[in-house]
Amino acid sequence: MPRPFLTRSEENSSVGAIKNARHPFYEHCEETLERIKQQGRYRTFTPLARQAERFPLYEEYVANLPEGREVIVWSTNDYLGMGVVPEVQEAAIAAIREHGAGAGGTRNIAGTSPLHNQLEAELAALHGKEAGLLFISGYVSNQASLQTILMSMPGWICFSDRLNHASMIAGIKGARGSQTVIFEHNDLKDLEEKLAAAPAEAPKLIAFESVYSMDGDMADIGAICALARKYNALTYLDEVHAVGLYGQEGGGVSQRDGVADQVDIIEGTLAKGFGVHGGYITASAEIVDFLRSTASGFIFTTALPPSVVGAALTSVRKVRAENWRRESLFERVHTMRQRLRAAGVPFTMTPSHIVPIPIGDAERCKRICRRLLVEFGHYATPINYPTVPEGTERLRLTPGPFHTDEMMDDMVRALALLLREEGVIPEPATQTIEKVA
Amino acid sequence: MPRPFLTRSEENSSVGAIKNARHPFYEHCEETLERIKQQGRYRTFTPLARQAERFPLYEEYVANLPEGREVIVWSTNDYLGMGVVPEVQEAAIAAIREHGAGAGGTRNIAGTSPLHNQLEAELAALHGKEAGLLFISGYVSNQASLQTILMSMPGWICFSDRLNHASMIAGIKGARGSQTVIFEHNDLKDLEEKLAAAPAEAPKLIAFESVYSMDGDMADIGAICALARKYNALTYLDEVHAVGLYGQEGGGVSQRDGVADQVDIIEGTLAKGFGVHGGYITASAEIVDFLRSTASGFIFTTALPPSVVGAALTSVRKVRAENWRRESLFERVHTMRQRLRAAGVPFTMTPSHIVPIPIGDAERCKRICRRLLVEFGHYATPINYPTVPEGTERLRLTPGPFHTDEMMDDMVRALALLLREEGVIPEPATQTIEKVA
Ligand SMILES: Cc1ncc(COP(=O)(O)O)c(C=O)c1O
Ligand SMILES: Cc1ncc(COP(=O)(O)O)c(C=O)c1O
Repeated sequence: MPRPFLTRSEENSSVGAIKNARHPFYEHCEETLERIKQQGRYRTFTPLARQAERFPLYEEYVANLPEGREVIVWSTNDYLGMGVVPEVQEAAIAAIREHGAGAGGTRNIAGTSPLHNQLEAELAALHGKEAGLLFISGYVSNQASLQTILMSMPGWICFSDRLNHASMIAGIKGARGSQTVIFEHNDLKDLEEKLAAAPAEAPKLIAFESVYSMDGDMADIGAICALARKYNALTYLDEVHAVGLYGQEGGGVSQRDGVADQVDIIEGTLAKGFGVHGGYITASAEIVDFLRSTASGFIFTTALPPSVVGAALTSVRKVRAENWRRESLFERVHTMRQRLRAAGVPFTMTPSHIVPIPIGDAERCKRICRRLLVEFGHYATPINYPTVPEGTERLRLTPGPFHTDEMMDDMVRALALLLREEGVIPEPATQTIEKVA
Repeated sequence: MPRPFLTRSEENSSVGAIKNARHPFYEHCEETLERIKQQGRYRTFTPLARQAERFPLYEEYVANLPEGREVIVWSTNDYLGMGVVPEVQEAAIAAIREHGAGAGGTRNIAGTSPLHNQLEAELAALHGKEAGLLFISGYVSNQASLQTILMSMPGWICFSDRLNHASMIAGIKGARGSQTVIFEHNDLKDLEEKLAAAPAEAPKLIAFESVYSMDGDMADIGAICALARKYNALTYLDEVHAVGLYGQEGGGVSQRDGVADQVDIIEGTLAKGFGVHGGYITASAEIVDFLRSTASGFIFTTALPPSVVGAALTSVRKVRAENWRRESLFERVHTMRQRLRAAGVPFTMTPSHIVPIPIGDAERCKRICRRLLVEFGHYATPINYPTVPEGTERLRLTPGPFHTDEMMDDMVRALALLLREEGVIPEPATQTIEKVA
């Protein structure tokens, strides 16, 4: 295939020529990839085809096999399995038949269907806010909203939790002219000291999450809002890993804790607890209208397809009404933990639905994942740097209503065996003897 | 509904209290919206439900009518109508039935289906590149790719066309530490002067579009690539409004001009010519792998739903194979121009498929759009600032294979009448006499 610039050998032969040299970016790419590989954090995506009717079963496609191989997936973020609920699928299908495969324009240019407006109203109601605004992803909702807010007036100071998600960091860093103060993760004392040290008249914003998805811990939303009132800071809360799952209607941890009305801006995704795709914010009417009217990442992009919006609308309505889905999720998480404990498989106890299995080494983490998949037909994604700090590599399990007791038993057996063989946990005395014998 | 902070009246009653004051951002939002309204550029989205089986007919939903009202839409960016091609819809539906409504995870966390890999390979083939990479939108593909590239090495200088799209600007501005040099729109002389003036050893990138969608003009891609070779700059080309439409297989203007191999990175969307949703880049294997491995906007977000990817795959394959779709588009555009000319309706002649009708005033532009919709049942979006410079407000028409001769006659009649009544074009002598009589 032809290359825009000369290849290495051609370059060497054209003595001293600067023009027509290979652009140095190509070499930079190669070197960076080489380094990533040496550090054991090069990622190969495992092609997994979700089987809607048999979720959490997926088919894995291996290079030289014509047929997919069945695997049980433990790492989906479709926490409640809403993406495979027939009514949700049928809503998507109906919208495709009625409106076509895409929106065909930006929100302003013929891309706003009545479904978009209905979903925005539904999300506002879910969080008890005046208005809602759809973005094409949770990532974009964070990036575009935070960047736009933090560039709206001179002198903004953003107080950002150290473990905030990449999408919030992208928006905060992108806001030229604003100042960022990072406070220690979930550390109210550190946050208050830093708020107190900032000029009283500067506009302030506190950006944080309710459920931190890699560690599974939670923020004390009420306490952060109290500090926000004391120092007159705006509050921006990412409930991406909590919407659908916590609170009487799935309004997130802020709903569960009865403090949603104290949060200025609640952000969420439609792609995890609601099982579809897209992101959103909810807030007061003027904040939503301001972002709708000024945020570049909202304005200059094709609207979400009506099928995505239609499916999400059905999903949100069901999740709000059907509390048994949440109960079933937490029962399954509880059962999984009990079985892991009984088998001596270490896991980090969290106040959320997330079950991290600490491994602590990128290569080993990838190898365990690989063996789990190839030898046992279970899939749990290895979580490595840069998603988590080096040395804290882990498998992250998200058991859900769709994981049966039998699947759990099978997975726990496999994990116990592999973690021993890979030296993550010691061989029990009895088993060692058996092996010697 | 409860507000996070005190309302104006409460605030006034709590004498001199700084804590518990309403955050100044609320007032900033109100003032900004007020200013936007005064400038006549406040946008209200018209809720339009596309009728897949009767495209370009949509239903408009007006507040107090229970039923939608039929309108003919002239502003879709689904240029070829691929979003309503039955095979494309069926591909989406099949993927929903098989895999569910969403991807359920990021590309790395169980969100890569075999469809994702197939579409990436198909797009690479379309542009004659080694590899392709999907993003959740064209906006994100530009922002994430440009920002990541321009922060990859110290000293990058980005040469950016003055009329580049907001998504490219977002990526370029977001790349802290890099330098930006804006060259005059499509001005090769200015570009060369600026390239020549820059330090020879600095890594350089030229970012530009093939079809500029608001004016409908085109870049001389070959000439820009020649300058890039001379000054050893990387080339980044946005073909968002050209993919599907130009070139033997719809590979864009770079394919039509036979210069795709001279462009380092070709970016496109799946949401316009291909009628679905999502964005992508294609480039050499190492550049694609580098962005796949390091671009935050690619890594930390839920993958596109399999249904979107499946529909896009079918659409790209059809568009590549079926040249008659492109022929039909340009025949329709040609016919529309002839009819506008015959009726004395001014339009900007462009080398592309885009037909701008200059109006030149935000309020008048919105009023004409409103009357066109209410009195005649035709919809063309008013394009106002900030999408185009103030004083160049316009209606932007994108006639397509689905607009019949009768629809054109009807639209042209309505436009001729409204533009006269609104004083955009003078009343013809005869008509004036008739009116007096
Ligand atoms: C905390 C947090 N916020 C935002 C996002 C982005 O949401 P989305 O996947 O909808 O882009 C994610 C993960 O994807 C996340 O973990
Ligand atoms: C030139 C250009 N690039 C990129 C985009 C963004 O593409 P998408 O709608 O897929 O986000 C657009 C318009 O939406 C555009 O006009």
